[in-house]
Amino acid sequence: MPLYSRDPILLTPGPLTTSLATKTAMLRDWGSWDSAFNAVTARLRAKLLAVIEAADTHVCVPLQGSGTFAVEGAVNTLVPRDGHVLVLINGAYGKRMAKLVQMMGRKVSTFETADDVPTTAADVSRLLTADPSITHVGLIHCETSTGILNPLAEIAAVVARHGRKLIVDAMSSFGALPIDARSTPFDALVAASGKCVEGPPGMGFVFVKKGVLEGCAGHSTSLALDLADQYAYMERTTQWRFTPPTHVVVALEAALDQFVAEGGRTARYARYHANYTTLVDGMTKLGFRVFLDPAIQAPIIVTFHAPPDPKYTFADFYARVRDKGFILYPGKLTQVETFRVGCIGAIGPDEMRHAVNAVRDTLAEMGIGEVAPASARRAAA
Amino acid sequence: MPLYSRDPILLTPGPLTTSLATKTAMLRDWGSWDSAFNAVTARLRAKLLAVIEAADTHVCVPLQGSGTFAVEGAVNTLVPRDGHVLVLINGAYGKRMAKLVQMMGRKVSTFETADDVPTTAADVSRLLTADPSITHVGLIHCETSTGILNPLAEIAAVVARHGRKLIVDAMSSFGALPIDARSTPFDALVAASGKCVEGPPGMGFVFVKKGVLEGCAGHSTSLALDLADQYAYMERTTQWRFTPPTHVVVALEAALDQFVAEGGRTARYARYHANYTTLVDGMTKLGFRVFLDPAIQAPIIVTFHAPPDPKYTFADFYARVRDKGFILYPGKLTQVETFRVGCIGAIGPDEMRHAVNAVRDTLAEMGIGEVAPASARRAAA
Repeated sequence: MPLYSRDPILLTPGPLTTSLATKTAMLRDWGSWDSAFNAVTARLRAKLLAVIEAADTHVCVPLQGSGTFAVEGAVNTLVPRDGHVLVLINGAYGKRMAKLVQMMGRKVSTFETADDVPTTAADVSRLLTADPSITHVGLIHCETSTGILNPLAEIAAVVARHGRKLIVDAMSSFGALPIDARSTPFDALVAASGKCVEGPPGMGFVFVKKGVLEGCAGHSTSLALDLADQYAYMERTTQWRFTPPTHVVVALEAALDQFVAEGGRTARYARYHANYTTLVDGMTKLGFRVFLDPAIQAPIIVTFHAPPDPKYTFADFYARVRDKGFILYPGKLTQVETFRVGCIGAIGPDEMRHAVNAVRDTLAEMGIGEVAPASARRAAA
Repeated sequence: MPLYSRDPILLTPGPLTTSLATKTAMLRDWGSWDSAFNAVTARLRAKLLAVIEAADTHVCVPLQGSGTFAVEGAVNTLVPRDGHVLVLINGAYGKRMAKLVQMMGRKVSTFETADDVPTTAADVSRLLTADPSITHVGLIHCETSTGILNPLAEIAAVVARHGRKLIVDAMSSFGALPIDARSTPFDALVAASGKCVEGPPGMGFVFVKKGVLEGCAGHSTSLALDLADQYAYMERTTQWRFTPPTHVVVALEAALDQFVAEGGRTARYARYHANYTTLVDGMTKLGFRVFLDPAIQAPIIVTFHAPPDPKYTFADFYARVRDKGFILYPGKLTQVETFRVGCIGAIGPDEMRHAVNAVRDTLAEMGIGEVAPASARRAAA
């Protein structure tokens, strides 16, 4: 590994490149029982609620661990032992949600569309009509496997109309894509510190509809992941139940202050969208083709078809781009060879231009002539 | 809160005061898929195994979250669905382990001694003889509720002789108290980043006897806490299954390098023991009395009787000592009023002397004359 004067830029779905102000917030030690730290936790919860305008409708429950821990905590806490969860799948994170529901012993049904096909509200309406035993619907807002965006607002409205409850994995959309708790009904929405709010990884958080957790005692088969217990304890004591990741917590608060200073969610979206268009324009000029239709593509992470040239291997391509200072991400599709490039983190269009240049130089080094997949070349012919 | 030129010293059971070298390791961002980070994870696991001489006998499985997450993961992964866990209790952490076993649906029995009475190997032998259905024994090595030390080596030998399996919560002992995996048989031993290895909080790790995890697939009712899956994935890919707390991971490696440079476990123990004797000598001179018999007191955290003076309240005492730069910890006993002072973290006898001085000044400010409990004054009379 070459010695970098600065860290490589992370063009991944998280952990992301964070700002120096966020990282330097970790240069202090905090007592987890001390009122100064408890005040950080209280402010953090309020600032997170404000991101989706949820202060009047929901509570925020932070949880130690990665985002998956928080998704599992939300399902295990909200879904009764005799509940039945319909999980909507078009990628690996949907599959993961279905798996954790099954492992915890709740009844699970799945509805799967292809990687490049969003679930529609009509699908969900039909499924809920057909099976009245479904109590909860699990949805991945932006499925990081491809970057596909599922229609949260429309699906939420349908689930509410059917009198069922919605649990949303908004891991890679929260803080960037529009989510408004005042108009979009959900029982729980889950995200994490190391995504579009640009904190370090290490904690998740769940927005739960007010009043719901009070009826969830005894649901969870896990102590560590029991959000009802976490919430009740935090409300009573202002403290976390178990040791919090103190440095991550204070850095996330610093990141949220920068989020507000930047102009909030719309400014964050605008920057990521500029990153996205800069990336896609540059890569398209090099001959790369985007896997998804732009209409269903979130400006969070972009899946590109791998070059069909036999001289291409992802491992070699990755290593060469990395040595130029940019960390790409592998594809997660089984049928098509792809790679992914993230547009999120404390980076702007300049970094995306530099990254495209690094990809161009890498293609030249590797002697790769055929960049577009055969299908795209046929279409262009 | 006054503005400190430096952070208050944390005299708590964790999070602890960490060194600047440990904290500055968090000033970099790492890609969780990148080989440079995977190399950190591999080195970290090896360095943790070395602390208890376990490289030949056990594997190390890191897990996101607090220590309790790792304890729950160890139990949920190792204990079959029809297993039966005997939990040995003399404080809050033993009670917590029993609760999480019960919540995950495994059969649990408990054996409880008073807060100041260690479990003995004879107790365990008798209990295992009486109930052959017990498959696993859960033990808290150093029970942080009081600081009491349970006889790990003796209990481990008895459990092995009975052909049962031992799961040890070594949260506050690992890295400081002697644990030797070559001579002490256990199936799992659990600790965390933010304790005596002096890293930041945010991850736990479990040492599992070699070969055991390979037989544990399908045990866990939790996806996030499934150590068999975490281990298999990490062995196959060198990566964490789900987003790791990258900053915490690299800081823990930095902390372990300092641990080795200091002289390893025996040097760490010697420093903590010097902290402990400095603290207890100083506090005893002020009139305070230690709750536990020195024979069963680990030099990790010390429980003191609260002054019987009516002018004493813990909240006021705590706030005044905190304003002088030292964060104490509340007691966790229901029968006796106490407070606790930790001896661990990147601190030495100087800090303990300063802390005792701050306590002395605080007593004077509060006008507290009676420091020793009535029982101690009667004994001295």
